[in-house]
Amino acid sequence: MVIPMGSLTFIGMGLYDEKGISLRGLEVARSAHTVMLEGYTNLMPGLKPEALEALIGRKPVLLGRKAVEDGREILSAAEGHDVAFLVAGDPFIATTHVDLRMRAARRGIRVEVVNAPSIISVAPGAAGLQNYKFGKSATITFPPPHSDVPYDTLRMNRAAGLHTLFFLDLRVEEGRFMTINEAIGLLLDAEGRRGEGAFGAGTLAVGIARAGGPEQLVRAGTADALLKADFGKPPHALIVPGRLHFMEADALVEFAGADGKLVRGNE
Amino acid sequence: MVIPMGSLTFIGMGLYDEKGISLRGLEVARSAHTVMLEGYTNLMPGLKPEALEALIGRKPVLLGRKAVEDGREILSAAEGHDVAFLVAGDPFIATTHVDLRMRAARRGIRVEVVNAPSIISVAPGAAGLQNYKFGKSATITFPPPHSDVPYDTLRMNRAAGLHTLFFLDLRVEEGRFMTINEAIGLLLDAEGRRGEGAFGAGTLAVGIARAGGPEQLVRAGTADALLKADFGKPPHALIVPGRLHFMEADALVEFAGADGKLVRGNE
Repeated sequence: MVIPMGSLTFIGMGLYDEKGISLRGLEVARSAHTVMLEGYTNLMPGLKPEALEALIGRKPVLLGRKAVEDGREILSAAEGHDVAFLVAGDPFIATTHVDLRMRAARRGIRVEVVNAPSIISVAPGAAGLQNYKFGKSATITFPPPHSDVPYDTLRMNRAAGLHTLFFLDLRVEEGRFMTINEAIGLLLDAEGRRGEGAFGAGTLAVGIARAGGPEQLVRAGTADALLKADFGKPPHALIVPGRLHFMEADALVEFAGADGKLVRGNE
Repeated sequence: MVIPMGSLTFIGMGLYDEKGISLRGLEVARSAHTVMLEGYTNLMPGLKPEALEALIGRKPVLLGRKAVEDGREILSAAEGHDVAFLVAGDPFIATTHVDLRMRAARRGIRVEVVNAPSIISVAPGAAGLQNYKFGKSATITFPPPHSDVPYDTLRMNRAAGLHTLFFLDLRVEEGRFMTINEAIGLLLDAEGRRGEGAFGAGTLAVGIARAGGPEQLVRAGTADALLKADFGKPPHALIVPGRLHFMEADALVEFAGADGKLVRGNE
């Protein structure tokens, strides 16, 4: 039996640009034999490949969806050498990374992780909403088909007074990114089909564009108002709040331009 | 009216040591007029004050709980100068930070944020559990009083097949940190009082110690087994899984030493 001499370190880069990497992440990337960069699970709106290259001191090998899902190129490299694998956000939020980690472990490759900010903590914080008041999250995907999962999740959370964080579908390789407007349109469609009163034109919602970067935009208002608002470039995320603590209501007014009367109605 | 010339930037440092700060965070801290460090909301087990000082190029002003909750020292400094405020984890997970941000905004102080890894994304990832399968999270606090919130949260989540992430109480200034063993003991106590079958000696649980650092330890087993396991130094966190996807079950075996039969029973 051959004992692998290499290692695979998953390094998160956060949400915006190359400066979202941690000092530990940069250290590991600089000393690795091979640096690979995943180019599809998430969009980092400020990432400049040449700036990343200058930072690390070499050109990362760019991997598309097929290469990451297949995994063999990464695992073969990591059997003989130290490989730094750069990913957007925090690693292991994507199932593909968990799968890759498992396959590496089974081959006897040493696996390490360097964490980074994730939309999961950044979006609630940006809106001033309290983490422990969020229920299950869900992804709103491009139809067809029209998935009922987002609506069911929202209904369940709202019944318990909880907030819901929605990730919006993005297909980086096709250049398709769901906007907050489309996401709200799809929730209104689902309400039309289901009619269970979990979401309507007057429901308070919070749109978050380009979370975690200098061009972050957070706006709270009725679904109807957000349907028409321009949030600019992707990526976008959406929160539908449940019952608000008075401090959360104040935060939505102060940080997200919410109407005072609207948020008081959700307290 | 005097328009403040300063700013307040909340900078997350992640979960382990000074190398968890992002490149952007370090840049902002180095160029700030004043650097303040919050010393109580979370424990960063590897943080060495002298290493942080060497990195930033000056000694941060260390603030205890009272100074942060009071906030006046921070806000006064930020009215005239650029203040970098370093916090453990990702900012705005703590309510105190949201309150401080709101007060700064009301005084006309420019507020910026530099994000960092949070236990909210790191713990699920470390266990190989899928984020969108988590329900509401809760904190298990030191009694007295015995809070019913953790048990109620668990009962609700398990009924929906969802995982539950528990933050464990820590009182940094008193040097008290709840262990995974104590947390499990408190959930078993709650089951004894309530008897609704949400948690028992045979329930699958996952203990995570020192998440996000090189000494991270993740162990899955029955409540009974974890009650006696030694997880070492704080901080600790606990996950009680709901229904497992087969890939999650595999991950718990592979990354957390779970018994194959035990996790199959939760699929």
